[in-house]
Amino acid sequence: MKRLILIRHGESEWNKENRFTGWTDVDLSDKGEKEAKEAGKRMKEAGIGFDIAYSSVQKRAIRTQHIVQEETDLLWVPEVHHWRLNERHYGALQGLNKAETAQKYGDEQVHIWRRSFNIAPPLLEQNDERCASNETKYNGIDPSVLPLGESLEMTIKRVLPFWQDHIAPSLLEGKTVLVAAHGNSLRALIKYLDNISDEDIVNLEIPTGIPLVYELDNNLKPTNHYYLK
Amino acid sequence: MKRLILIRHGESEWNKENRFTGWTDVDLSDKGEKEAKEAGKRMKEAGIGFDIAYSSVQKRAIRTQHIVQEETDLLWVPEVHHWRLNERHYGALQGLNKAETAQKYGDEQVHIWRRSFNIAPPLLEQNDERCASNETKYNGIDPSVLPLGESLEMTIKRVLPFWQDHIAPSLLEGKTVLVAAHGNSLRALIKYLDNISDEDIVNLEIPTGIPLVYELDNNLKPTNHYYLK
Repeated sequence: MKRLILIRHGESEWNKENRFTGWTDVDLSDKGEKEAKEAGKRMKEAGIGFDIAYSSVQKRAIRTQHIVQEETDLLWVPEVHHWRLNERHYGALQGLNKAETAQKYGDEQVHIWRRSFNIAPPLLEQNDERCASNETKYNGIDPSVLPLGESLEMTIKRVLPFWQDHIAPSLLEGKTVLVAAHGNSLRALIKYLDNISDEDIVNLEIPTGIPLVYELDNNLKPTNHYYLK
Repeated sequence: MKRLILIRHGESEWNKENRFTGWTDVDLSDKGEKEAKEAGKRMKEAGIGFDIAYSSVQKRAIRTQHIVQEETDLLWVPEVHHWRLNERHYGALQGLNKAETAQKYGDEQVHIWRRSFNIAPPLLEQNDERCASNETKYNGIDPSVLPLGESLEMTIKRVLPFWQDHIAPSLLEGKTVLVAAHGNSLRALIKYLDNISDEDIVNLEIPTGIPLVYELDNNLKPTNHYYLK
């Protein structure tokens, strides 16, 4: 039996302020730190460790991962941080308050941006200071793959190569894998694992800071999954 | 100009209790956390970042590294944790109080164990529960290279392959490198870089939690070094 543990980062400062975050690199809130700590404690109590830890390059996910590693006494395991596990890019909506945006564009439009499968938010202009290309951490990446805004479908397409090239090979080598990531990059993995339809995946809610354990057979087909709560 | 930043972990719980630590995996003390935080702040103020972070597999070094990464906003840089950067293995002295050990064996003997270049402490027996082979983190390593006790000379010999295979190639690729490690594994690197004699290296004191910046030419010869304090 192979084991994969998914964890959505704890509450961030902008979750708290109800803003569209996307690729904006905001930190965990105090509550988010506590959630991550609690997650690590539950894993330790359940005797669930891991041999390698993957995360996005966003600090709310990396800090969640590090806190879980501290609580499980697994700081020494190899860590890989990769942009393909980043949150869905929210384009020109990044930084805006969700309620204000609903007032400006209407509830229905905001609902479409948030809950449709293949409709992207308004894209960032190339010269917008919020563009990922302005951040050092994305300097080594082919600029043509850095998004200016993504639908969930686009997010899934850029997450899956990371599953194929990193997570799946590690599982096949017999490693237990931790993935600390985001609501939408985790939706991508779960849609793939559980073969969830485009219609249903948009409504799948993944709680923050609760380890989601997948048990997989030798062909990486899930045989069971459960939240550690 | 190439840049390498060495940092010895902040004060640990056992530094505080004056015990021989070696490969025992003790955590930072509160003071040690503060030292690491201060180190990160100084690096940020000095505009000194890094492109890759190396550490031992011991939590006092990894936590120092993570705290520096948080303070410099560089959590996303690739991290590599490797046993070759571990502290000198202190053999059967690990866990003993330094003052008590001096009472038992005499000041002179303890001085020899602590300050000679090529004399190892009493070795651990193969069945001692303190052996590294009992820890999961060393399971993937050729058991014949796991020490039961090391002189400084032995420590240097197992650290240098990590310089040759990881740190030097990263510097030659143009990366600025952070190394978060220990008094004796850092002595190994400094002895090599500055061509320090066997007699002098044993007396070189490296303060905890103060970034030591090396500037190197294209052949990795040091042209300057200074503490960021």
